[in-house]
Amino acid sequence: MRPGIDVECREVGLRDGIQIQKVFFPTEGKIAWLTAEAATGMPEIEVCSFVPPKLLPQFADAKDVVAAAKKIDGYTIAALSPNLRGAMDAFEAGVHKLNYVTSVSEEHNLANVRRTVDESVEDFKRIVELRNEKAPDVKLATGLATALGCSISGQVPVADVMALAGRFFEAGADELVVSDTVGYANPQQVKEMFNAVIGEFGDKVPVAAHFHDTRGLGLANVFAALEAGCRHFDASLAGLGGCPFAPKATGNIVMDDLVFLLEGAGMKTGVDLDKLVQVREIVAANLPEEPLHGMYAKAGAPKGFVPATQAA
Amino acid sequence: MRPGIDVECREVGLRDGIQIQKVFFPTEGKIAWLTAEAATGMPEIEVCSFVPPKLLPQFADAKDVVAAAKKIDGYTIAALSPNLRGAMDAFEAGVHKLNYVTSVSEEHNLANVRRTVDESVEDFKRIVELRNEKAPDVKLATGLATALGCSISGQVPVADVMALAGRFFEAGADELVVSDTVGYANPQQVKEMFNAVIGEFGDKVPVAAHFHDTRGLGLANVFAALEAGCRHFDASLAGLGGCPFAPKATGNIVMDDLVFLLEGAGMKTGVDLDKLVQVREIVAANLPEEPLHGMYAKAGAPKGFVPATQAA
Repeated sequence: MRPGIDVECREVGLRDGIQIQKVFFPTEGKIAWLTAEAATGMPEIEVCSFVPPKLLPQFADAKDVVAAAKKIDGYTIAALSPNLRGAMDAFEAGVHKLNYVTSVSEEHNLANVRRTVDESVEDFKRIVELRNEKAPDVKLATGLATALGCSISGQVPVADVMALAGRFFEAGADELVVSDTVGYANPQQVKEMFNAVIGEFGDKVPVAAHFHDTRGLGLANVFAALEAGCRHFDASLAGLGGCPFAPKATGNIVMDDLVFLLEGAGMKTGVDLDKLVQVREIVAANLPEEPLHGMYAKAGAPKGFVPATQAA
Repeated sequence: MRPGIDVECREVGLRDGIQIQKVFFPTEGKIAWLTAEAATGMPEIEVCSFVPPKLLPQFADAKDVVAAAKKIDGYTIAALSPNLRGAMDAFEAGVHKLNYVTSVSEEHNLANVRRTVDESVEDFKRIVELRNEKAPDVKLATGLATALGCSISGQVPVADVMALAGRFFEAGADELVVSDTVGYANPQQVKEMFNAVIGEFGDKVPVAAHFHDTRGLGLANVFAALEAGCRHFDASLAGLGGCPFAPKATGNIVMDDLVFLLEGAGMKTGVDLDKLVQVREIVAANLPEEPLHGMYAKAGAPKGFVPATQAA
């Protein structure tokens, strides 16, 4: 975590937020978005996914986006890849961090990346080897998708989450991302899950939260995870996002509302909230048909509100 | 609290939800709404406000609504009044509970009820006397409006909230309702506030929460209050509501999403969530121009979801 901040927010809108958009988000627009958002003080931005363009044409420009992202200093450039081939491309492009994702639910993993969980873990081990050889400074984060419920198999046992977390940790993961991929999580469940995962792995690697707001509980889940000691949160500006294989699971939690929650709670994010709200205009200009979410942007700051970062 | 439930939800849509509606919600529609919602198992419904019709014409039919509400058994019929005159009418109409409201913020109280806080407390004492004489079975709840921030004066000191809570308790209040009237609250602040109020008064009277979702933190605030031991929550179906004197403070927290949160957390509300979602149709039919909020109603239940009340 960057010095001087209490909680790390990570923008995933340029990946999770736009991956199911049918409209191609122009490369220049992506670069304008990440440039403006890096300037708000956002400590980490997931700028793209390294996947076959025929599968997700939205990311056909991944190399160009990373190249542009690298011209800016002061934040972590992350990219997602679900396999070795994409990881290779991401390392070559020069990302700082690779996000690898596997569903805890076997059925969801088969639907999402067409492999069993065992195969995904084996592939991750090959990515670790490649990283150690070719890009030793790159951090490897492992996303535990459907950790809080699966739209195909329903409830996901905590023991399954702990087991997969353990396998990834043993294999060399630098971070564990507990993910409510389909927006099923309840804050009570989140508290118990994060207590368990942080209790087991929290002193070894960062444990992050990736929540969707599908059923309105996204920010309640954030507070529950905060209470359990989580200090790393994914979100997407204006709540863009979803999963192509999780019906109706549209919408990451809203980054602007997340920052408002954290800053109001006295936790420094390092992000300038006013500037962040202005970045929504870039998204709106590039996705004119897409509804933008977020209550803070509509209602404005409470009278006399001083964000923790500004109070410092 | 009704036996067999863990948390008490209280529908305030028929009062807070519609008081700023410019369209008159037809009396028959109001009766259909409260009848259908009582049938979901909702333990308490605030059915109207006893205020001068020239001030709030929406409640010109308050007596008729209460008369209809009393034909149904098994739930608490509440009504709001900000003054002695309205309380008199409410007692005569036969409500089970009277909600009296005073803003902790002097400026907001002057704007909302045209009296100082001192005058409001004195008026409450007269209501207690009247209740003791004329309607000894009626419970008196006191709302501490703007307890978590004021759109006129900004931050509201915890000490002011505790002082007003103390004055109402001494005067004879049967319940204290800590209210985020203008949607300023942050879950960290909520946790501290409810720890303080419940710590001081929780063993004497119920301490309830009244949250608005103006800035997206309403359900996070619910979880924070739950963590502090609060077990009584106001909400309005489909998130209708607001305050005429609090600019942009539209929207109580969404009852359907609240029940989803609580039932998913393993807490019995006694409310049938599926039936509750269907009641939204009555609201939609009577307020066709009004946007209905609520994520659960849009996304549906998680696969395999069993509400705590149904599991019992």
